[in-house]
Amino acid sequence: MDTHAVLMRMATEEDLDQIVYMLADDELGKTRERYEQPLPETYRKAFHSIDSDPNNELVVACIGEEVVGVLQITFIPYLTHQGGWRATIEGVRTATSVRGKGVGSQLIRWVIERAKERGCHLLQLTTDKKRENALHFYERLGFKATHEGMKMKLYIT
Amino acid sequence: MDTHAVLMRMATEEDLDQIVYMLADDELGKTRERYEQPLPETYRKAFHSIDSDPNNELVVACIGEEVVGVLQITFIPYLTHQGGWRATIEGVRTATSVRGKGVGSQLIRWVIERAKERGCHLLQLTTDKKRENALHFYERLGFKATHEGMKMKLYIT
Repeated sequence: MDTHAVLMRMATEEDLDQIVYMLADDELGKTRERYEQPLPETYRKAFHSIDSDPNNELVVACIGEEVVGVLQITFIPYLTHQGGWRATIEGVRTATSVRGKGVGSQLIRWVIERAKERGCHLLQLTTDKKRENALHFYERLGFKATHEGMKMKLYIT
Repeated sequence: MDTHAVLMRMATEEDLDQIVYMLADDELGKTRERYEQPLPETYRKAFHSIDSDPNNELVVACIGEEVVGVLQITFIPYLTHQGGWRATIEGVRTATSVRGKGVGSQLIRWVIERAKERGCHLLQLTTDKKRENALHFYERLGFKATHEGMKMKLYIT
């Protein structure tokens, strides 16, 4: 595939199957996602929540008809930094067929411009410490690991 | 002050002055906030963006009329984890007058319940590696530092 011909666009519901496939086709993702036919309804519900929120954007990287990358951006207004907006990215995945071919970098560079367009002063993400390659990938793109990313699982009783 | 009598509630515009004072009265905050009278308009604008977004909540901890703590929660729908919602917290501060008296812990415990009420399966935050005490504070409350928190400053040209 010609990874020079990658185009970014907002995801549509028709992309959902390919997106969930990529989320599940991943070292950590395979333990927590459920890619099956029909797709579990929870993914469709989440898609509609994201799609209807002007501060959330699901972006796909495409080569022709094929979806080869995905990520979600959330734009958040904060009081800190004198009332500055930030962009948070999450769920970054590329298809195994294009891995190591620069699609991920193109996707992140696109997001940097999108976050600037939305007036954000900061772009942020957390990456699992188990993903050693990811840390270096993001550092090469200009991110700095200045913070601890802390998580707490919640169990609804 | 009796820190057993702390009440949490949603912030109103009338609290904004006390909130920005707390944000600025902080080792890192003092280098990036501007607490002055009248308050810079950017804070008021950010407050309205937060207040009008159903997925953002600005919460204050109060003792009587006095605001002694603040944080912001953002509820985010994701495709990952089978379409699960997360809560992200940011801008956590307590007033110097009550520091070390458990107000911060009470605030975080309140947020844990609020995030469950909203159906979130994960509560997350990033804390600057320069804030050594903060890491232990969050670990004691049940957070795990499993991720790197990566940031990129954006300069809008």
